[in-house]
Amino acid sequence: MKLVIANKLYSSWSMRPWLAMRALGIPFEEVVIPLRQTDSGPRILAHSPSGKVPALIDGEIVVWESLAIIEYLAERFPDKGVWPKTSAARAHARAISNEMHAGFMALRQNCPMNLAKKFASKAYGADVMANVARIEAIWAEARSRFGAGNGGPFLYGQFSAADAMYAPVVTRFETYQLPVSDATRAYMIAVMDHPAFRAWRSDALAEPRSWDLAGYEEGHVAVEAYPRTGA
Amino acid sequence: MKLVIANKLYSSWSMRPWLAMRALGIPFEEVVIPLRQTDSGPRILAHSPSGKVPALIDGEIVVWESLAIIEYLAERFPDKGVWPKTSAARAHARAISNEMHAGFMALRQNCPMNLAKKFASKAYGADVMANVARIEAIWAEARSRFGAGNGGPFLYGQFSAADAMYAPVVTRFETYQLPVSDATRAYMIAVMDHPAFRAWRSDALAEPRSWDLAGYEEGHVAVEAYPRTGA
Repeated sequence: MKLVIANKLYSSWSMRPWLAMRALGIPFEEVVIPLRQTDSGPRILAHSPSGKVPALIDGEIVVWESLAIIEYLAERFPDKGVWPKTSAARAHARAISNEMHAGFMALRQNCPMNLAKKFASKAYGADVMANVARIEAIWAEARSRFGAGNGGPFLYGQFSAADAMYAPVVTRFETYQLPVSDATRAYMIAVMDHPAFRAWRSDALAEPRSWDLAGYEEGHVAVEAYPRTGA
Repeated sequence: MKLVIANKLYSSWSMRPWLAMRALGIPFEEVVIPLRQTDSGPRILAHSPSGKVPALIDGEIVVWESLAIIEYLAERFPDKGVWPKTSAARAHARAISNEMHAGFMALRQNCPMNLAKKFASKAYGADVMANVARIEAIWAEARSRFGAGNGGPFLYGQFSAADAMYAPVVTRFETYQLPVSDATRAYMIAVMDHPAFRAWRSDALAEPRSWDLAGYEEGHVAVEAYPRTGA
């Protein structure tokens, strides 16, 4: 299987299926196509007929949209724990993953993913803070109802697709230093310490500097930068 | 099982799981809570702890988000044909359903669902027309690759969750008289002639006039009105 993705530094949608596959031990080959280069459009279209990334290619089957890729993997690898085991936990995991997929616009628009920086905290307005509050409530509910005592610090105990869906939010909370509870912070650390996440960040920091996009830090003041290893 | 929904006249997200369940013969009881009444918020919260509709309640399990409900139904009723039968068709159906779930913002914002009216056609701008073009391409591809010769006029032959996901778009194309191809028009007619769709529209037209919301026709000129049967 081949997973077509964009810049690891910025592409939150690419990160989701990649993290799920890496964390759950589903082997794949990756194809990285940087955004907004002169040949980005045709290069994506050569792999993904919809013109969208991420796209999973499995023989003649091409699946685009992160959650459709995750459902495809859940069917193809029923023993990998893509979703939690019990029906109730699985229903909850799908509900919160879909809420992420179509929501939290204020947070996404004001705080784009940028894995190389931390920005000075500032007032983000009521819509962003309402998104943060809802996300903290979701994480707390999942962990207390389904995660606790289930073998790990993640939303449903063990790492699942739901953690992959929210991982780019974890990085935004960190990058923009949004005020969160201690319990939220503990979950964020668990995600950022996961070997799959560390591998993704390391790859992101090794991307060529010529792929940098100024729009991903416009209006923010960097107070910390992760060391870049790319040329 | 109980499905909590909002106004049938306007709530496109409510329509999706309702149509899927009705069309596929999955029995349920409905609870309709009209939007923007003084008690709408608490009434929704009494059924759906997330404060969101649609919500499916199955004993102690509450599932919100239309696609999470659909995946829950697909697991619980594996013989009902919620998704198409073959893995390739199912992957495609999930990809286009997720594309609907998180996309087509211009169409959704400019052309809200309103099942009681047809509005005069007007120029909707490049973003709306790009949405229309992409949707026509999706429908054409699904029908030619997976639907043709598969026992029906729907995206994958027989009516599936993917048709339910796009049914509110069908009604928008009709309501706002957007210019579409003959093939698209044939698909729209198939959806609007489906007994489940006709039942939903009939219920919508019977809703009390006191539930009407002016925002759902602001900026548009009605040229045709379906007869209202509600008090």
